[in-house]
Amino acid sequence: MQAKGTRDYPPEEKLLRNSIVHTIKSQFEKYGFLPLETATLDSLDSLTSKFAGGEEILKEIYKLKDQGKRDLALRFDLTVPLARYIGENPHMKMPFKRYEIGKVFRDGPIKAGRLREFWQCDGDVIGSASMLADAEVLTLARDVFKELNIDIVIKVNNRKLLNGIMAAAGITKDKEHAILSLDKLEKFGKEAVKKELKEKKFNDKQIKQLLDITLFKGTNDHVLAQLFPLLKDTEGVQGLKEIEELLSYLKAFGTKVQLDISLARGLNYYTGTIYEVYTTSEKMTSSIAAGGRWDTMISKFLKTDRIYPAVGISFGLEPITTVLTQPNPQKTSVKAYVIPIGTVTESIKILQKLRDANISADIDLLARNPGKALAYADASNIPFAVLIGDEELKQKSVKIKDLKTGKEVTLIVDQAINMLQKQ
Amino acid sequence: MQAKGTRDYPPEEKLLRNSIVHTIKSQFEKYGFLPLETATLDSLDSLTSKFAGGEEILKEIYKLKDQGKRDLALRFDLTVPLARYIGENPHMKMPFKRYEIGKVFRDGPIKAGRLREFWQCDGDVIGSASMLADAEVLTLARDVFKELNIDIVIKVNNRKLLNGIMAAAGITKDKEHAILSLDKLEKFGKEAVKKELKEKKFNDKQIKQLLDITLFKGTNDHVLAQLFPLLKDTEGVQGLKEIEELLSYLKAFGTKVQLDISLARGLNYYTGTIYEVYTTSEKMTSSIAAGGRWDTMISKFLKTDRIYPAVGISFGLEPITTVLTQPNPQKTSVKAYVIPIGTVTESIKILQKLRDANISADIDLLARNPGKALAYADASNIPFAVLIGDEELKQKSVKIKDLKTGKEVTLIVDQAINMLQKQ
Repeated sequence: MQAKGTRDYPPEEKLLRNSIVHTIKSQFEKYGFLPLETATLDSLDSLTSKFAGGEEILKEIYKLKDQGKRDLALRFDLTVPLARYIGENPHMKMPFKRYEIGKVFRDGPIKAGRLREFWQCDGDVIGSASMLADAEVLTLARDVFKELNIDIVIKVNNRKLLNGIMAAAGITKDKEHAILSLDKLEKFGKEAVKKELKEKKFNDKQIKQLLDITLFKGTNDHVLAQLFPLLKDTEGVQGLKEIEELLSYLKAFGTKVQLDISLARGLNYYTGTIYEVYTTSEKMTSSIAAGGRWDTMISKFLKTDRIYPAVGISFGLEPITTVLTQPNPQKTSVKAYVIPIGTVTESIKILQKLRDANISADIDLLARNPGKALAYADASNIPFAVLIGDEELKQKSVKIKDLKTGKEVTLIVDQAINMLQKQ
Repeated sequence: MQAKGTRDYPPEEKLLRNSIVHTIKSQFEKYGFLPLETATLDSLDSLTSKFAGGEEILKEIYKLKDQGKRDLALRFDLTVPLARYIGENPHMKMPFKRYEIGKVFRDGPIKAGRLREFWQCDGDVIGSASMLADAEVLTLARDVFKELNIDIVIKVNNRKLLNGIMAAAGITKDKEHAILSLDKLEKFGKEAVKKELKEKKFNDKQIKQLLDITLFKGTNDHVLAQLFPLLKDTEGVQGLKEIEELLSYLKAFGTKVQLDISLARGLNYYTGTIYEVYTTSEKMTSSIAAGGRWDTMISKFLKTDRIYPAVGISFGLEPITTVLTQPNPQKTSVKAYVIPIGTVTESIKILQKLRDANISADIDLLARNPGKALAYADASNIPFAVLIGDEELKQKSVKIKDLKTGKEVTLIVDQAINMLQKQ
């Protein structure tokens, strides 16, 4: 019996997932990120460090022991193992741009689409505080989704700017609570957020000022121009400067983003730029990639004074798969199905020629009659059958049947290879 | 602290491992195998079934519980999850050719090269008893190692033939013990095996007959011809027939193998063809891939009368990596390192052009002086630096420095792209 909260991925799903992962991987490498593989099993100590995942994640850690009674756990993300790795390799050259695509485990409640083991696809730049790094990460996201043929909107904000906005609205206490409510603006609307802020005991003046500011509309430049006179504290001014610098780099890259000053996300973690990527497809309303700058976590985790500025991205393999799943998914990567009709030895030789030409090809392994073998190939969604009988062999040819159209054509072997390569 | 028996793979190792996995994956798909992903977490029940891994593996299973107190375990191979998957999908079309590349976990003793979490790369054909399937799997192995540039020898035997040989030597009781001793012939020599067989209480006549038979030398045909008159029981004759059929298919595929009638391996598991792939490289004396036919395990595991003949292969990622590791491994996949000299915005535009041309490119993210940036690129093994100063911009060109030779050349941007694409 399958373990609760886990599932298997049959070929028609795994083929799509592999192709998405391949695209993400290729783009990471194009952008100069290098692959890292960290261990799946980690020490419980490391994963439960107070600077790792925080209180919520603690409840969801799968714990186990090895034969030596050591306390172990399954990693719940790829960030904590990265921090551990950096600590264990103090002489690493910086900046270090790494990506990792791997499984993580969380013993949490099972909601729709939420599994207890799932893939994460993360890339991070460690060791650069420059907004150029943030701009690279966002441009990488643009290219990944261009390759995947998914139309997107990238929403960007800055944690320091958010703090500045809180200050401008006179909110100094419990500002994280206000920020969390604000994050719901897009999803639940102004009235719902107003109500929640009231319940959280913010006063009417604070609420009005906050909502006025966050409802600033227009182009990025316009929103920034409206914000500028309001931001008085150092942090807010620094946030504004970072956003402006980021936008100027993004312009040079040709990457379009939308400034959304109500965007919050991952409060205890992010320190500067934050962003979420949404698709314009109606299939998925949650974000399909997200990330931001997290300049302090590694130092705290490693208990060191050395500074490790960091900015990263996490692609959501599950939502991306949802967006790209077709009603009739590709069921196979096989292009040609060889059916020997009393000609096994010669058919094997032709099969070998197809494969030598890098054509994904299979052969009937059950010595079925041609009708049954054709039905198997058709049901498996293999596009072409290659029928080889004595008549064909005499003419050094094969009969190719297009299983979609039913059309048959007899071709000499090299022609058949040419034809199949072009399909 | 890293968990005992686990390790991280830094980029220079992960790049090589990724390229090996990519080759194995491509060849599997060329041979009509489809990808399957089974869950890493499984129910303890399933993994401890007496038809799963056997007694030895039971001791090495990592056990854990989820919040619902369910007994779970980490998979220790990819075969048991496959059997479970087949049981849960009874209407699957047969034959089913699947491959899976994934991590497995064993809480065993840590010897050199033996880790507690490691990758397995398995392919199996389920639902065909034809020796054509066995021949395909061996031919796939040939192509994988051809692509990887590793010279190999494939040693083949047959479990039924081995039983027939035991019968011919008058061994009916404890024949598995005799087979296990025989398997040591290659490694420890005739005298050691003789001694061990004596300790196991086989009589002198049995030992002599057994060793005489297994020392048959010569071509495959010659060995078979010597065996033929000795094999009297049905199983032995069937084994001989299977081997002959396998060899005839392999001949059509053009795949060379070496019949080795002392080869045993995985006694409780395999039912027909067994084989091991060795490299002629001195770096690795153990097998680098292996497998065989296991016709009964799935039915027993699923407690069903339905027959699931199966034949498969397992590639050893660890030993293959050992064979292919160079003294100076490739440290990066980055080809060009862009160094802006007071020209960030324009440099970003050129960087984008390089990436649009699918050149893996990086940019200095620390605004270092050119000397320091060059040193970083060189230490990172990036082959080319792309220096962009005002002078270059004026001429719509860039300066390319080959970091191995030190040679510099100034090229207009499109020429530079052409040049880098060809490298």
